[in-house]
Amino acid sequence: MPVGEDFGPRAVANWRLWLQQRYSTLEALNDAWGTAFWGQRYGDWEHVVAPAATPTIANPAMKLDWARFTDDQAPRVLPHRTRRHPPGSRTSPSPPTSWRTSRGTLTCGSGPRRLTSSRTTTTCGPLTPMRTWASRSPLTSRAPWVVAPRGSSWSTRGSAVNWQGRNVAKRPGEERRNALTHVGRGADGILFFQWRASRSGAEKFHSAMLPHAGKDSRVFREVTQLGQHMKDLAEVRGSRVVADVAVLYDWESLWAHDLEWRPSDDMQFRERMRAYYERLWLDDVTVDFAHPEADLSGYRLVVAPSSYLLTSAAGENLSAYVAGGGTLLVGAFSGIVDEHDAVHVGGFGAPLKDALGLTVEEFLPLREGETCEVVFDGTALTVDAWAEDIALAGAEVRGSFAGGPGDALPAVTRHQHGEGTGWYVGARLTPEALAPVIAQVYADAGITPEGVAEGLETITRRGAHHDFVIAVNHREDAVSLSITGTEPAERYRDRRNARPQGRGRSRRPHREGAAGGGA
Amino acid sequence: MPVGEDFGPRAVANWRLWLQQRYSTLEALNDAWGTAFWGQRYGDWEHVVAPAATPTIANPAMKLDWARFTDDQAPRVLPHRTRRHPPGSRTSPSPPTSWRTSRGTLTCGSGPRRLTSSRTTTTCGPLTPMRTWASRSPLTSRAPWVVAPRGSSWSTRGSAVNWQGRNVAKRPGEERRNALTHVGRGADGILFFQWRASRSGAEKFHSAMLPHAGKDSRVFREVTQLGQHMKDLAEVRGSRVVADVAVLYDWESLWAHDLEWRPSDDMQFRERMRAYYERLWLDDVTVDFAHPEADLSGYRLVVAPSSYLLTSAAGENLSAYVAGGGTLLVGAFSGIVDEHDAVHVGGFGAPLKDALGLTVEEFLPLREGETCEVVFDGTALTVDAWAEDIALAGAEVRGSFAGGPGDALPAVTRHQHGEGTGWYVGARLTPEALAPVIAQVYADAGITPEGVAEGLETITRRGAHHDFVIAVNHREDAVSLSITGTEPAERYRDRRNARPQGRGRSRRPHREGAAGGGA
Amino acid sequence: MPVGEDFGPRAVANWRLWLQQRYSTLEALNDAWGTAFWGQRYGDWEHVVAPAATPTIANPAMKLDWARFTDDQAPRVLPHRTRRHPPGSRTSPSPPTSWRTSRGTLTCGSGPRRLTSSRTTTTCGPLTPMRTWASRSPLTSRAPWVVAPRGSSWSTRGSAVNWQGRNVAKRPGEERRNALTHVGRGADGILFFQWRASRSGAEKFHSAMLPHAGKDSRVFREVTQLGQHMKDLAEVRGSRVVADVAVLYDWESLWAHDLEWRPSDDMQFRERMRAYYERLWLDDVTVDFAHPEADLSGYRLVVAPSSYLLTSAAGENLSAYVAGGGTLLVGAFSGIVDEHDAVHVGGFGAPLKDALGLTVEEFLPLREGETCEVVFDGTALTVDAWAEDIALAGAEVRGSFAGGPGDALPAVTRHQHGEGTGWYVGARLTPEALAPVIAQVYADAGITPEGVAEGLETITRRGAHHDFVIAVNHREDAVSLSITGTEPAERYRDRRNARPQGRGRSRRPHREGAAGGGA
Repeated sequence: MPVGEDFGPRAVANWRLWLQQRYSTLEALNDAWGTAFWGQRYGDWEHVVAPAATPTIANPAMKLDWARFTDDQAPRVLPHRTRRHPPGSRTSPSPPTSWRTSRGTLTCGSGPRRLTSSRTTTTCGPLTPMRTWASRSPLTSRAPWVVAPRGSSWSTRGSAVNWQGRNVAKRPGEERRNALTHVGRGADGILFFQWRASRSGAEKFHSAMLPHAGKDSRVFREVTQLGQHMKDLAEVRGSRVVADVAVLYDWESLWAHDLEWRPSDDMQFRERMRAYYERLWLDDVTVDFAHPEADLSGYRLVVAPSSYLLTSAAGENLSAYVAGGGTLLVGAFSGIVDEHDAVHVGGFGAPLKDALGLTVEEFLPLREGETCEVVFDGTALTVDAWAEDIALAGAEVRGSFAGGPGDALPAVTRHQHGEGTGWYVGARLTPEALAPVIAQVYADAGITPEGVAEGLETITRRGAHHDFVIAVNHREDAVSLSITGTEPAERYRDRRNARPQGRGRSRRPHREGAAGGGA
Repeated sequence: MPVGEDFGPRAVANWRLWLQQRYSTLEALNDAWGTAFWGQRYGDWEHVVAPAATPTIANPAMKLDWARFTDDQAPRVLPHRTRRHPPGSRTSPSPPTSWRTSRGTLTCGSGPRRLTSSRTTTTCGPLTPMRTWASRSPLTSRAPWVVAPRGSSWSTRGSAVNWQGRNVAKRPGEERRNALTHVGRGADGILFFQWRASRSGAEKFHSAMLPHAGKDSRVFREVTQLGQHMKDLAEVRGSRVVADVAVLYDWESLWAHDLEWRPSDDMQFRERMRAYYERLWLDDVTVDFAHPEADLSGYRLVVAPSSYLLTSAAGENLSAYVAGGGTLLVGAFSGIVDEHDAVHVGGFGAPLKDALGLTVEEFLPLREGETCEVVFDGTALTVDAWAEDIALAGAEVRGSFAGGPGDALPAVTRHQHGEGTGWYVGARLTPEALAPVIAQVYADAGITPEGVAEGLETITRRGAHHDFVIAVNHREDAVSLSITGTEPAERYRDRRNARPQGRGRSRRPHREGAAGGGA
Repeated sequence: MPVGEDFGPRAVANWRLWLQQRYSTLEALNDAWGTAFWGQRYGDWEHVVAPAATPTIANPAMKLDWARFTDDQAPRVLPHRTRRHPPGSRTSPSPPTSWRTSRGTLTCGSGPRRLTSSRTTTTCGPLTPMRTWASRSPLTSRAPWVVAPRGSSWSTRGSAVNWQGRNVAKRPGEERRNALTHVGRGADGILFFQWRASRSGAEKFHSAMLPHAGKDSRVFREVTQLGQHMKDLAEVRGSRVVADVAVLYDWESLWAHDLEWRPSDDMQFRERMRAYYERLWLDDVTVDFAHPEADLSGYRLVVAPSSYLLTSAAGENLSAYVAGGGTLLVGAFSGIVDEHDAVHVGGFGAPLKDALGLTVEEFLPLREGETCEVVFDGTALTVDAWAEDIALAGAEVRGSFAGGPGDALPAVTRHQHGEGTGWYVGARLTPEALAPVIAQVYADAGITPEGVAEGLETITRRGAHHDFVIAVNHREDAVSLSITGTEPAERYRDRRNARPQGRGRSRRPHREGAAGGGA
C-alpha cells in the first residue's frame, strides 16, 4: 500500500467518486471486485466504504483499488501543501517531501507512484536492496534525475538515519562512495536531507549536512568535499545510462501481491525483485526498470522476477517482445491475476502461455525451513521455499526438481517463440542458485557480462558527445581495470573508492536503437 | 472467544437484554462478576458495555459471559443470512458457513458452539491437532455427521488451504486417505469447500474440487475417484463409532482458560487437550468427546486433560461416575473456577476432592525453559512447564517430583473412591511422558490397547446388523493386521492407505449398554 | 509514559488548560515543541489534541508534555476515588492504589510520579531490577516509608504475582528474606497486596496473605511469622539509611528517552540504570536516588547512568558539585536534550562540558549482535551496543575503543574540574565490564567498598541514638561477617538469611553533614 491513507469522510466521498469514474455502474464494480463470492454484493454506492478492520480478510480487489485511489490523490495534495508553509518560518523552505493533512503529517515514506512523473524524482520507496538500488530504482529509471533526500537507506544523507532500530553512522568516505555511485547510475545532482540538523522534532537524530556538532565535524568536512566533487563533474550532467536489460517492475503488482492470503509468505515481491537484481548486480549487468506494458523492443533481455499481477495486455506485450526476437526470463508466481486481482482463465500464468510454452497447474509451497533441489545442467541448485507443478505446453525442460513436493517435475524451462526465447524458473532460487540459469539466459540474449571482479561496478553514461564510464569499487581491496579513454582530473579521482569518470569509448555493447552516440 | 464478535450499539443493547435474562437483577450480576474487587460495581444497566480495550485487563467473568452471549447469537443470525443470497447470483448457493453483518463478513472460523446442534455439523474449531482430530471433534462427537468444508486443516478440501503462512498442497492420495479416515471416525458423507475455485475474492487460492487448472488436473481426478469410493461405502452410512473412552471437552472452560493473567502461559487448554489426545491416538484408543456434565456411565474411562472451569454440578457428576465404578484421569490445573470464573471455595480442585482425594495448595509454574522430573514407577518423566503443591486428602502418591520448585512433593496420585478410581497428574507431561502413567490407568479401566503398530489406526463403526472395522495406515510402510470378517469389494480397497471396511465381528471390547449389536 | 492516560474530550480540554498555564502563548508552545520542523505549527489552541496514532511518529516534545500532564492529573484523581467505595462493600477498604474512570479501571502500574510526595509511598514503578531495588527505588529514596503492595516483582506479596507469562511462586523463606531486605533498605513497615485472595476478578491468581488454600498453608504460616519479626524490629523504625553515593534518576528523562526514533534500541534508560545499579550492588555500595537538580553536596560520588534529558540547570548543578570537590560518573548518551526534548546547542553533552571536559561529536551505535572493546588500564572490556565519537575538551583519555565503528577513539575519560573529578564512559558496558572503571572512580571519591562476599548485602540505618547494621545474605552458602555491636534478640535472628539488626558503631564511613549521630 502507498503510505498516507486517509479514511476520513471526505476521503471516502472522493473514493466513491473515483470508483464511479472508473466503473460507471455499480454492476461493473461488483463484477470487477467479484463480490458474488462471500455474498459481498453492493446494492448502493453509499454502501461502499473505506477498507476497515474485518474479522477475516477484506475483498482484495477493493483493497487494490484503494491503493490506486490513494496513490492518485498524492499528487493532488502536493501543490496545496507547498503553499501552506507559514510566513516567517525560521526554517529554510522545505522540499516537497512531506505535507500535513487533517490526519497528521504525511511523509513520502514508501512514496506515491505518481510523484515520479515530475522531473525531480524521489528515491522514496519500499525497497532497500543492493548498494546502488536507489540510484536505478523503479521511480527514476531512464529519467534525468537527482538523488532526493531519503527513504532508502542508500539515498543521500550525511551519516545515520533515525528510524531504524540501530542507526549506524556512515564510515569515513562511505557517503562519497555512495553519492558518486548515484552519479554513475544517472544522477545529475545530490540533494540532502537535511541541511542543518533540527534541534527539535521527530528527526533530530537524523544526520544532516551540518550536524549538531557544528562545522568542525567529520560529516560537514565530507559533505563540503563532495560538493566540490560534484562541481568538477558538471560535464557528466545530462548524459544517460546505457542498459541492455530491463527488469519489470509494476507497483500495482506489488500492491496486489502484498495482499492477504497468498499461497506462501515466503514468496514476496520485494524479496524476489532483490534476488534477481542482486544476481544481475553481481554479474555487473546494468539494468533499467520498466513497466510490463512499456515498449521493450530496445532491450536484449527482459527479466520479470515477480509479476503476480500481469494484465492480458502486458502478456501480449511480452509475447510480442519474444516473438520479435527478445529474450524473456520469468520468475515463479507470475501472470497469476489480472488488474482486478482475479485469476486469469486458462490456468496460472495463462497470459504468458505463448511466450513460455506452459501454464502452472498447482503451487507446491515448501514448509518453513524445508528445502529441495533443482538439477540444472547436472548441478543441484537449492530451492528454499517454492516449487510448482508446471503443465508444459511446448516448453523444453531444462531443469527438474529433486526431492520436495515437486520431485521429478519440471522446474526450469526454455521455449522458442517466434524469433525469441522465453525462460521460466518455477522455483524460488537464491541469487547464487540463479547464476548457472541466468548464464544460459545471457547467452540467448547475446549478453557477455564483463565482471572483472565481484563488487566492481561499471556503468556507462552516454552524453551528446562522449560516453562516460564510471567504475565503483565496493571491495575492500584494490582492483585493476583497463579502459581506453581520458583520465579524470586528479582532484576528483579517489583511488580507494571510485574512478568516477572516464572519457572515451564505451566498453559496453551498445543497445541497438539507443539514442545518442558513443566514441 | 468465538469469532464474529459484534461491538456495535445494537449488539450492546442485546447484550444488556441477554444479561438481564440471565441475572434478573444488577445485584446478581455484580455478585456473579465479582465487581466488588477493583471497585467495578455497576449501579445501572446502562453502564454495562461491551468489552473494550482497557489500561489493564478487563473483568474475566464479564468476558466469559460475552463469549457465551456472542456464541448464542450465531444461530440466530444464520437463518437470516441464507435468505439474503442475491437472486441471479452466478455462484452456486453457498452452504451456511459464512454470513455478512453490518461489520463485515463473518466466517465460521473457530465456530459457534451452538451450530453443532444442527444435523449437518461443522468441523470448524480452534483445534488442529492429530491427523483425525476433526473427525471426532467436540463438535461432532457421537452425532451422525458429514465432514463439512473447512476450518481444520484436516477437514476435506481438494488440496491446499489459503490462510496459512505456507499453504502446502496435498500429496497424491492424501485427500483420499484423510476422507476415508473421516468415514472411519463416523462421517456419513464428505462435503467440499469449494466446488469451483472462484477467480475473485478472498479465497481464490483455496483449493477446490475443480481447480483453476480445470478438469485436466490431479485434484479433479482424485476428487472424482473419491466420489466413487463414497458411493461404494453406502452401507456404512448410519452406523456409529464405538468408543470406551470419553475425553472431557467444554467450550466454556476453553474460553475461561484463555482469558488473561493465568498462572502460566505454558498451561493452555488446546495444548493439553492435544497432548492427551495424542497419547490416546498413539495407543490406538478410540475416544468420544463429552461434556463434563453429560451422562458418562457408558464409558470405561473418562479423561479430563484440562478442565480449568468445572462447575460444582460437573464435580458431582464426575464423583458419582467414579463412585459407580468408573476410572477418571484428571490433568493439572483442573477444577479451579466455577461458571463465573470464580475460584472454588475449599482450595484449587475442590469440586474433584472426593473423586481424587486431594486439593492443590499452590501452583508452582516453572520458568521458561526450566524442566524437572516426575519419578513414576522408577522411571523419570520430564516435566516442562508446570508443577503443583498437592494437599493430599486420601489419595495415594504414585509419582513424585524430583528437582524444580516441587522437589519431593507428590506429582501423580491414585485414589479409590466408591467402586472406582480417580487419577491425578499435577504436572505438564508430554505425550511420551504420559505413556507409563496412562498404561496404569488403562489397567484400572480394563482397557487393553491393541496397537499393532504406531500410526495404524483402527476404528469400529457399529451398524444395525454389522460392525464395520476401518483401518487406516498413516505409516510409510505396510502393516499386517488380522481381522475376522468379510473383505471389502476390491474396488474400494486401497492397499497403500486404508482398508476402509470389514464386515463381521468387532475386535473391540464392547461398551456395556451400547445400543445396537455386533457380530 | 505514566499509565492511566485519558484521551477523552474532558481530558483534552484539561490538557489545553494545562498547556496554556505552562506556555501562556501559542507562540511559546510552538517554540517549545519545535513545530517549525515538519510544518506542525499550531495556529489555534483548539487544534491541539491528545497524542493520536499517526502515519509516522508524533512530535516528541508534545508527547513529553503529555506525559507530564498525565502524571500531574493522577494525584488530583486519587482523593475522589477513595470516596467512591460503595457503602456496604464486602471487601475490606482498599488502599489507594487503583481507581475507576469513565474509561475503565486504572491501577498504579508504572506509577504516577507525584504520588510519591505522600508519606505512604508506593513502589509501583517500571523497574524490576536487582533484588532490593524496590526498597531503594527512586520513589522512596530518603523518605521514611513502608513497602507498599506491588508493582515491582520484589515488592511484598505472599508468593507469585499474576500478570507475568510464568508467575513463579516464592520459595520457602524467600518472602522473609525479601521483606527484611526492605527493612534494611529503610522500610518501617510492610504492607501486602492482598489480604485474602479474591475469588473473583482480575487478580484471583495473585498471591495473598491468606491464599485460596486457607490458613493451613505455607504462605499464611510464613506471613504470620513475618508479622512477629516486624514487631520485634520496632526499635529500628524511624532510622534512616546512610548512603555516600547518589544515582541520578529523573522520570522526565525516562519518558523522553523512551520516545520514538532514538539512535539505538539498545540504549535504554532502564537497562543502563539497572546495569550501573547492579555494579554498585555487587560492590555492596549503598546508594540513594536523587534528581539531577537536587542538592548533591552531601555525597562522595554521584553516578548518572543515563541522563538523556538534562536541563541546563542540572548541568550547572553537576558542574558545581564537581567543582566543589565531588566525583561524578556519567554514562553514555547523557546530556543530550533539554526539557523540551530539544538537542542542546554546542554538541551532544554540552551541559556537562565543564564537568567532563568533552562533548560528543557523533553516535556510533553497533549493529545487532556486533561487539567491540574498550581497552582500559590494559584490560579489554566488551562493548555490546554503543560507541561514541568523543570530542575532547580537556579530558584525559583513560580508555580507548578497539575495533568497531569507534576504533582507536577515546571511550573512557577523566577530567579534573575545580576540586573534583568528572568521569565519562562513552560506551555501553555490562556490569562486569564496568568493574575496573568504577574501581578507579571509587578511589577518586574516597570510597572503599568492603564487599566481604558477592551477594552479602550490608546496610546501615542511623537512628537518633544508634546505628543499625543490617546484613542480608543472598548467597546459598553461609558467610562470616564481623561487626562490633549488640547482637539482636535470638528470636529474630535468622542464621540462614539475615542478621537483621546490629546495635552499635556503624561500619560505614559517615557522610559529612548527615543528620543524626552514630556510635
